[in-house]
Amino acid sequence: MTIKEIGKRAKEISYRLGRMSAGEKNDGLKTAAEALIARTDEILKANEQDMAAGEANGLNGGLLDRLKLTKERIEGMAEGIRQISRLEDPIGSVDDMKKRPNGLLIGKKRVPLGVVGVIYEARPNVTSDVFALCFKTGNAVVLKGGSDALESNRAIVRVIREALAEKGLPADALQLIESTDHETAKEFMRCHEYLDVLIPRGSARLIRTVVENSTVPVIETGSGNCHIYVDETADLSMAAEIVFNAKTQRIGVCNSCESLVVHQAVKDEFLPKLAERLAEKQVEMRGDPAACEACGALLPATQEDWGTEYLDYILSIRTVSSLEEAIAHINRYNTGHSEAIITGDYANAQKFLDEVDAAAVYVNASTRFTDGGEFGFGAELGISTQKLHARGPMGLEALTTTKFIIYGNGQIRP
Amino acid sequence: MTIKEIGKRAKEISYRLGRMSAGEKNDGLKTAAEALIARTDEILKANEQDMAAGEANGLNGGLLDRLKLTKERIEGMAEGIRQISRLEDPIGSVDDMKKRPNGLLIGKKRVPLGVVGVIYEARPNVTSDVFALCFKTGNAVVLKGGSDALESNRAIVRVIREALAEKGLPADALQLIESTDHETAKEFMRCHEYLDVLIPRGSARLIRTVVENSTVPVIETGSGNCHIYVDETADLSMAAEIVFNAKTQRIGVCNSCESLVVHQAVKDEFLPKLAERLAEKQVEMRGDPAACEACGALLPATQEDWGTEYLDYILSIRTVSSLEEAIAHINRYNTGHSEAIITGDYANAQKFLDEVDAAAVYVNASTRFTDGGEFGFGAELGISTQKLHARGPMGLEALTTTKFIIYGNGQIRP
Repeated sequence: MTIKEIGKRAKEISYRLGRMSAGEKNDGLKTAAEALIARTDEILKANEQDMAAGEANGLNGGLLDRLKLTKERIEGMAEGIRQISRLEDPIGSVDDMKKRPNGLLIGKKRVPLGVVGVIYEARPNVTSDVFALCFKTGNAVVLKGGSDALESNRAIVRVIREALAEKGLPADALQLIESTDHETAKEFMRCHEYLDVLIPRGSARLIRTVVENSTVPVIETGSGNCHIYVDETADLSMAAEIVFNAKTQRIGVCNSCESLVVHQAVKDEFLPKLAERLAEKQVEMRGDPAACEACGALLPATQEDWGTEYLDYILSIRTVSSLEEAIAHINRYNTGHSEAIITGDYANAQKFLDEVDAAAVYVNASTRFTDGGEFGFGAELGISTQKLHARGPMGLEALTTTKFIIYGNGQIRP
Repeated sequence: MTIKEIGKRAKEISYRLGRMSAGEKNDGLKTAAEALIARTDEILKANEQDMAAGEANGLNGGLLDRLKLTKERIEGMAEGIRQISRLEDPIGSVDDMKKRPNGLLIGKKRVPLGVVGVIYEARPNVTSDVFALCFKTGNAVVLKGGSDALESNRAIVRVIREALAEKGLPADALQLIESTDHETAKEFMRCHEYLDVLIPRGSARLIRTVVENSTVPVIETGSGNCHIYVDETADLSMAAEIVFNAKTQRIGVCNSCESLVVHQAVKDEFLPKLAERLAEKQVEMRGDPAACEACGALLPATQEDWGTEYLDYILSIRTVSSLEEAIAHINRYNTGHSEAIITGDYANAQKFLDEVDAAAVYVNASTRFTDGGEFGFGAELGISTQKLHARGPMGLEALTTTKFIIYGNGQIRP
C-alpha cells in the first residue's frame, strides 16, 4: 500500500473510532493486551531476527538493549495497555456551554484528533504504547518505526490487529508503514491530506528532521538542558540533596539536571559541600572561573558547556551575582523543559516562577518530577517543549481537540 | 536589520512584556489608539502612496478597496484597539492546582506564547489589530505585511512604536519586516530560534505557502466550504430562511454556506421553495441530477462543484437518501469550518453533532455565526480550521500557552 492509501484508510476508520464508547475501547485494549501475552513466542521470534541483524550491522549496546524484547518486557507492554484502559476517557465531555443573547446554546466538545502519525526509532515497546494511547482517545494511528525494529513491529502490529478483528473491532485503527526508505518517510511527513498530527519520538536529530520537513502539524517532544539555581537564601543541605537527585537519580533522561547556577554569596560554602556529595557518583563538575576558585574539584567550563545536554555524569556550574542574572542565563540556554530554584526567599521564588520560560518551573524540588506519572496523568505520550497545543508532560488530552457544538431554533445572522 | 536581529530583539523584549501588568498593557493600548487618531493625516499620506502605486500596478478593485484607508477606517482601527483594552487579561491565572501525594503543589499557569510572527496581505487594518491582540496577551509581534501596503504599514507601526516609547513602554513589542522579497519571507518562516508561532492571514495560497515552508509552528486559519443539510423532518420554512441567510447575508466570507445537502424525501417540496427565496438575490443553484429533476431553476453541477468554495452567489446542491450519506458527503468535502443540520428529529440532531468533523457544528441555525464576536470572545484572531492548539474562532487565549508551576519543600525523586 502507498502512504496515501494507508492515510485514506486511517481517515475512514477514524470516524468509526470517534464514535466508539469508552467500554468498547477498553475492551479492545484488554483484548490487545491478552493477545500480546498469548502470542509472546511469535513476537520474541521476530525480535530475534531484528537482534541478529542489529548485531550483524554493528548496532551499539545501548541501541541493542532498547531493541531487545523478553517475556518480561512483553508483559510490561501488556500491563501498560491495561493501565491505559483503566484511565478515564476524555472524549465526549462538553465544557463552557453558554447561552448567547440570541438564544444559541454554544459549548465545546472534546473529540479525537482523527489520524495520528508517529515516527520513532528502534524501540518496539513504543509500538504498543502509542497504539493504546491513540485507541483510548478514539484516534486512528499510523506508525513508522525504525528499520532496525521492523520485524518486531510487524509482529506486534499483526498480533494487535488480529486481536481487534476477532472482537469485531476495526483492525485499521493501527497501521504500520513497512517501507523504511527515506522517500517514504518524506511522503509521510507531507501527508497533511489525511494526517491530523505527526509526533516524532526519539533523538533530537529525528525530531529536527520531522520539524524541518513536515507539512503536518507536529507535536515536538524535546531535549532538556535543565538548570537548578541555588540562591543566597537557599537551605544548602536541601540544595545539595536536590542537585544530587536531579543529576544522578537517572542519567540519560530529559528531566535530569545538566547545569547548576549558584549565587556568588554562597558559592564558597556550597560548592565544596556539593562536590563531596557528587563525588559518590564520580560526577565531573565544570565551572566558570569564579566557581573553580571556590572549589578545587572543578574543571574549567567552556562556552559550549552552557548549552550542552550531557545525559552523563557531568554538571556545568555558573556563578551569578543576582537572581536577574540567573534568570537571564537560564532563559538564554535552557531548552524549555524543567528549571528549579532553591531558595528560602518568598519574593525570589515567585519571581523565578514568573520569569523563567519553561514547561515546568520548580521551587525547592528536583527537576526529575517532570513526568506524566508524577504529575498524576496516568499515562504519558511524551514531554512537549514547544508552546502550542500541549506543553510539558502530555497525557491523553494531548491526543484530543475540541469542536464547538451549537444548538439553535432557527437563528439567522442579522 | 536582518530577520535574526529582529527575532532576537523580539525575544528579548518578550520577557519584559510577559511581566507587564494588565493595567500597563491597557494603558499602552489606549495610547496607541490615541496616537493613530492624532496622526491620521500622516497615515493617510502614506496610504496615498500605496494606493497610487497599486493603481499604477493594476491592482483590482477589491484589493484596492482593502488597501484604502480613510479617516473613518483609522477611527475604526483605534476603536478596535480600545475594545481589546477592555477585555479581561487572560495572563497569569492558574488552573488545576493540585497537591500530589508527595506534597508537591502543581498548577498550570497561563502565560504568553512569547514571540508571534504574522504574515498577511495588503490590509493595513490587520497591522493595528494584530498588534493589539498580541500586546494584550504580553507577546512581542513581528509583522510581515504585503508589499502593496508597505508605506501604510510603516506609518502605522511608526506611530504605535513612538506612542509606546513616549510612555516608557517597549517599542520593540511591535516590529515590521520592511524587506518584501521572497528570500526574507522564507528566512522568516524558518526562524524557529526566536519565533514561537507563525500565523498566516489571507488567501488560501498564502496559508498553503506558509504551511509548506515554515519550520515554526503554524496556526492555520483556513477557508470554509460550509454545508447545510436539510433532513426529512426539517421545518422547511426555517430551512429556507437559514440557507438564504447563510448563503447571502454576506458573500465572500469563510462561514457562508457554499453547499446544500438535502434529503430526497423533501427535495421536491423544498427546492422550488428555496429557489424562489434565493432568486431575490439571483443566486445560481447547481444540483446533482435528482436535484435538477426536482426544480427546473437548477443547473447541473459537476464533480468539481462539491469541493468549491465559491465566495459568490452560487450554491451547490446534493441529494442524499439518508443522514449517513449526508454525513459521509460532508466529511469528505468540507474544510473543517462550519456545518449545519436543519431537523426536527432529536436523534438526527445528536448524530450530526457527534459525527460531522468540523470546528463548529450547528443544529437549526445559520453557519454565519462562526465568529469570535458572535461566540462572545470579544476579539477574534481568526478562525482556525486545524485541530491543534486552537480550533474554531480564536480569542485572546489562542495567543497564550501554559506552564506548570510547582511548589515544593525539598522533594527528591525516589
